[in-house]
Amino acid sequence: MSADSTGSAIAAERASSPTPTPDQRGARALAGGGPVRVAIVGATGYVGAELIRILALHPHVEIAGLVGRERKGDPIAHIHPHLATRSLHVYDHVPDDAEAVFLALPHGTAAHRIDEFLSRGQAVIDLGPDFRLHNPADYPAWYHFDHPRPELLATAVYGLPELHRAELAVAGTRTGAIVGSPGCYATTTILALAPLARAGLIADVVIDAKSGVSGAGRDPKADLHFGEVNESVKAYSIFTHRHIGEIEQELLGQSPSPGANPGTTGIDFLPHLIPMTRGILSACHVRTTRPVDELYAQAYGDEPFVSVVPSAPATKHVLGSNEFRVWAGLDERTGRVLAIGVLDNLVKGAAGQAIQSFNVLHGLPEPVGLLQLPLAP
Amino acid sequence: MSADSTGSAIAAERASSPTPTPDQRGARALAGGGPVRVAIVGATGYVGAELIRILALHPHVEIAGLVGRERKGDPIAHIHPHLATRSLHVYDHVPDDAEAVFLALPHGTAAHRIDEFLSRGQAVIDLGPDFRLHNPADYPAWYHFDHPRPELLATAVYGLPELHRAELAVAGTRTGAIVGSPGCYATTTILALAPLARAGLIADVVIDAKSGVSGAGRDPKADLHFGEVNESVKAYSIFTHRHIGEIEQELLGQSPSPGANPGTTGIDFLPHLIPMTRGILSACHVRTTRPVDELYAQAYGDEPFVSVVPSAPATKHVLGSNEFRVWAGLDERTGRVLAIGVLDNLVKGAAGQAIQSFNVLHGLPEPVGLLQLPLAP
Amino acid sequence: MSADSTGSAIAAERASSPTPTPDQRGARALAGGGPVRVAIVGATGYVGAELIRILALHPHVEIAGLVGRERKGDPIAHIHPHLATRSLHVYDHVPDDAEAVFLALPHGTAAHRIDEFLSRGQAVIDLGPDFRLHNPADYPAWYHFDHPRPELLATAVYGLPELHRAELAVAGTRTGAIVGSPGCYATTTILALAPLARAGLIADVVIDAKSGVSGAGRDPKADLHFGEVNESVKAYSIFTHRHIGEIEQELLGQSPSPGANPGTTGIDFLPHLIPMTRGILSACHVRTTRPVDELYAQAYGDEPFVSVVPSAPATKHVLGSNEFRVWAGLDERTGRVLAIGVLDNLVKGAAGQAIQSFNVLHGLPEPVGLLQLPLAP
Amino acid sequence: MSADSTGSAIAAERASSPTPTPDQRGARALAGGGPVRVAIVGATGYVGAELIRILALHPHVEIAGLVGRERKGDPIAHIHPHLATRSLHVYDHVPDDAEAVFLALPHGTAAHRIDEFLSRGQAVIDLGPDFRLHNPADYPAWYHFDHPRPELLATAVYGLPELHRAELAVAGTRTGAIVGSPGCYATTTILALAPLARAGLIADVVIDAKSGVSGAGRDPKADLHFGEVNESVKAYSIFTHRHIGEIEQELLGQSPSPGANPGTTGIDFLPHLIPMTRGILSACHVRTTRPVDELYAQAYGDEPFVSVVPSAPATKHVLGSNEFRVWAGLDERTGRVLAIGVLDNLVKGAAGQAIQSFNVLHGLPEPVGLLQLPLAP
Repeated sequence: MSADSTGSAIAAERASSPTPTPDQRGARALAGGGPVRVAIVGATGYVGAELIRILALHPHVEIAGLVGRERKGDPIAHIHPHLATRSLHVYDHVPDDAEAVFLALPHGTAAHRIDEFLSRGQAVIDLGPDFRLHNPADYPAWYHFDHPRPELLATAVYGLPELHRAELAVAGTRTGAIVGSPGCYATTTILALAPLARAGLIADVVIDAKSGVSGAGRDPKADLHFGEVNESVKAYSIFTHRHIGEIEQELLGQSPSPGANPGTTGIDFLPHLIPMTRGILSACHVRTTRPVDELYAQAYGDEPFVSVVPSAPATKHVLGSNEFRVWAGLDERTGRVLAIGVLDNLVKGAAGQAIQSFNVLHGLPEPVGLLQLPLAP
Repeated sequence: MSADSTGSAIAAERASSPTPTPDQRGARALAGGGPVRVAIVGATGYVGAELIRILALHPHVEIAGLVGRERKGDPIAHIHPHLATRSLHVYDHVPDDAEAVFLALPHGTAAHRIDEFLSRGQAVIDLGPDFRLHNPADYPAWYHFDHPRPELLATAVYGLPELHRAELAVAGTRTGAIVGSPGCYATTTILALAPLARAGLIADVVIDAKSGVSGAGRDPKADLHFGEVNESVKAYSIFTHRHIGEIEQELLGQSPSPGANPGTTGIDFLPHLIPMTRGILSACHVRTTRPVDELYAQAYGDEPFVSVVPSAPATKHVLGSNEFRVWAGLDERTGRVLAIGVLDNLVKGAAGQAIQSFNVLHGLPEPVGLLQLPLAP
Repeated sequence: MSADSTGSAIAAERASSPTPTPDQRGARALAGGGPVRVAIVGATGYVGAELIRILALHPHVEIAGLVGRERKGDPIAHIHPHLATRSLHVYDHVPDDAEAVFLALPHGTAAHRIDEFLSRGQAVIDLGPDFRLHNPADYPAWYHFDHPRPELLATAVYGLPELHRAELAVAGTRTGAIVGSPGCYATTTILALAPLARAGLIADVVIDAKSGVSGAGRDPKADLHFGEVNESVKAYSIFTHRHIGEIEQELLGQSPSPGANPGTTGIDFLPHLIPMTRGILSACHVRTTRPVDELYAQAYGDEPFVSVVPSAPATKHVLGSNEFRVWAGLDERTGRVLAIGVLDNLVKGAAGQAIQSFNVLHGLPEPVGLLQLPLAP
Repeated sequence: MSADSTGSAIAAERASSPTPTPDQRGARALAGGGPVRVAIVGATGYVGAELIRILALHPHVEIAGLVGRERKGDPIAHIHPHLATRSLHVYDHVPDDAEAVFLALPHGTAAHRIDEFLSRGQAVIDLGPDFRLHNPADYPAWYHFDHPRPELLATAVYGLPELHRAELAVAGTRTGAIVGSPGCYATTTILALAPLARAGLIADVVIDAKSGVSGAGRDPKADLHFGEVNESVKAYSIFTHRHIGEIEQELLGQSPSPGANPGTTGIDFLPHLIPMTRGILSACHVRTTRPVDELYAQAYGDEPFVSVVPSAPATKHVLGSNEFRVWAGLDERTGRVLAIGVLDNLVKGAAGQAIQSFNVLHGLPEPVGLLQLPLAP
């Protein structure tokens, strides 16, 4: 969609709607008329903390409310000691005058609560899976629940700006915008393979991904105990990881469900837990014999948060930042392309990417608030 | 080979040779006539330390000499503080009366020094790559050197007892026995896939392996600095890891060299460095639609150090032990078998396996000295 | 030996000697009359696992029963995957014919259940605190419970063989022997300072200890989550750590309770949680100007598990072993002696030490079953 | 602004005021007349990287030059891959028109090169030790070299803004300003104890500090190998750590040198290496019986980067930020005060603090460029 046609759509939307659209709110913030007021639901987890960490310094945002399970009234210092210098408290409800809501909730929850936010004219950026998949049948297949509002799935935007930037901008001209922000493994894998997918070169894919433990959330569990994780590596969710659904949706255009017939083109995706806190590396093996360097340079040359790097990237190269880095090359010996992508699962894989989509939705400069450089060593 | 025919071979060998064969020395040790005297060359590295740790408590072995680079005369406490309770010193030569020699040397070194050991009638268990590959052409292809004694490659035994136990036993009836003890990645991967290879089911293989840093040796290097390794994961040796040669030799019967034509059946093997010290996990993705549980149970039912486990194994389950564990299953959605193997790279992937081969070579009970249970957490 | 014949043997033994003493059972085991039958109560935790790991290979012990909370009937593989090669199961009761019982239970539990074991003539090695302190008043002071069997505290032996070897041996000649096996911090600190204490040089003591997380047990807790522990260090139990009581008992002869008047000679002990799984380092700062090398050499020259080392020890030097290492020196600039002790908290700090006491109690060679060398790197 | 016009502006400035003082340059930057041009000497190490990471986003700074050992012409991506998105290169000299120079060099180097910078009118912020100690005799005592420019030590400011803010501001009004930026352990310890020192309560001090490995620099060394560091803790520099000199200077007013008579008031300081990359925790044990809460609140109530926290702080609470956190309390049982301070050794312990001093020196708002929140988990 051209810039012009987007402009026309915005004008039309403004005429018909008394509730401001996200882009109207963004325009107000840019003009010095007051920051966009946001709330974070699920503020007590790791993703919630990361949203606070970034949004607290976002120049066009005001954190209007934090909502957390069973922690009503607690100061942020009790929940996230590293954020203790911020005088914020956790509440049990989203304030009415919040203009956008970030949701970091277990699957199935956001879908049931969505009307609460839409009825107030709040834009929704959902970091859970409830609005990522377009095909309602994928929810029982991958998440074992029937989606209560399947009609919303057609309009929700898959919040990967590198692939769906224009859709996000259009959605920002409407009230009731819903963004389904991608999963951490999904972001890593889709961005690593999108240039091949666009070129029609996706075939016979094997993806072997490694993640730090923060991707599994903050709740104490036996297998997240330091004594179990340190000095160990294991695969998990073998054959069944839920992010397969969105990876296939974005790369193949559809997701053959887990119960489908043998021999279909389902992607072979294997995640591993490794002894680190943050970071995902996704190694993607694809059968093709065509050199691919050009494809990556073309696809990502202008992206603010994507770098095509000349040698194998490490997760530590992007720690704490919104960067995604990818290396790709052809092994002539085996006739396979290898693409390796890395990101910080809590930033580009979660909070940072959601804020990137928020920026696009609100017509703000896409990188604003997200320029922090990686932290190493 | 039956026990009987092995027995005949042993008898014939004894008649012709004044220098005792390994199995004669082993028989003497079992009969209480004195332990087998062993030397360790390359005693100052991680593999050397592990050989000492295990051999020091082996009931049929006496450590007759430690040889280490530029550390002549140093007590073991200065080199390996954890072994300080042992009163051992490092020397600059192998004692003449050592009966077997373990070599833990950089590639290319053992091949040039082999006559020194053979001329003394010492059995050689080489933990480097110089006697692993049978095809002399594989050395320039994978290791960039021409093998100086190619005629020895035909008789050297690939020291993976689970696949070559009978050959090891026969070799033990000859003086001049040479064992090429497998690489750590190779052991993990070959044992994970051998049951499929035997059944002719190896096709379209992608192997994604993860290793702790001890596999890279003890020399300080920039990318082994704690500050670089912790909280990070990266792939390395992309398309070129040297263990591919022996993996292909054992699984495919040959190794298409790195310069071979595109499209051949070379195995796609990708190693990663993860932030831990010990352990390798090799995830092997193979295209086939045949269930495989039976194959693994049959292949490994009687093995003393291999377990086929009912759920995904972690490297921590085998830390510090000579165990190899494997899980395998078929994903009907993708038509692929996944086999996951784990071991401790310094034990079953190096020192422990070399001692296991030493035991077989000398006619000692295969598990003797290797029964220590894994250390967890 | 069948269950029946075992039963008969026990019955016969009981008839002749109303109940055998531990040393009689040890003598029987040494004479080939059958290993000492032991049970482990609290087998599902980290200390329980470590007891199994060591006792499974102890030549004079048979594991007669494992007892674990709510895991009745589970195979050991489900609870401790690293021990899966052992065919053991967990039960809900201690078998009657167990001869010695190792208890790894929360504080207050062993004291209430002690009669159950004594009534069967079972020797008790308690790895919890219930029989460590001799003064009943110390229990409400440090553990906030009144000891239900204070009369037993006078006869229970503090199971630190280096200080109480003779008492352990005497206790082994009586039925109803109870050993209170020391805490992990206490062992590290007492052994680091005992030579000074014996010389009357303990004054103005500051102890700063660092521990891996396994000391905090296996139950999942928020602050043991890998994401919280990795890349972090913190002090905890400030001014109140329970091991202070036993440290003061052993070093000062008494423990001024937490509520005592200000200015008393209470030891200043500060523990830290550091990002590792196993190991304790205790740095002990003591005001004195007398050189101390001699004292340590004299105190520990003949100890099988204690080394006085010439440079600063690291916890990794003793990982997985029953070793304790100590360095001590005088800083003339400050007029203070520094003594630094290290051990593996699950071995010399728990399971290994308990087995060492068990050996002494039963008249077995003290190091038997405990000779495994440290695992490094 | 083009290079030419910058050159002209500088030339014009030089004509009017022989050399501008730091605060004049800061005033210019605040007024929009061009950022302060800084160079970083020693840009290839960990501290250099951290200076780049922070200064690259500092709104009133332009990085005019990076100088690194033997890396002339290299792009930053080859040296610090995490900073690859910045188009910077390393040179072999400091540009003439740099206005301030950050030095991250081995001890003894800055003192010998200082005239090079002063002669150009460049303000010097030295992150090494060469300008921290006021007493020239302390250099041979602690660093084993004679200071080549002892007369400069009287005017150099110890760059701890919380203690020497006014001196920094005054120094900023002079050309030739030199800041000796404190050591990482020194910052942690001095800030933890300064409120007591001011109140005259420093007596009988024992300091037990723990650091991540990044404090030891980036050069590969045997004892910084991941395999040595992970799962281990050890003390080092026992009795002799060089930061003792500056700790004593700031807390006691003088530093009794290492060779002084026994029994003097030298501080007992023991550093440990623990298995993490960033962070220092300093536990300070001081004999006094006076409650201290008030002292800390008074001392630090208005500090932008210091928090007095109500419970034990962890290093992870401040990771990646310029925050210092301290907890202090009195143990009535032992008559000692315990003060625990934490910081990120590369930020508040090095680069961040140097930039904080730079800001004060130049009359810029003290927190500018340093507001990034801590990164957790």
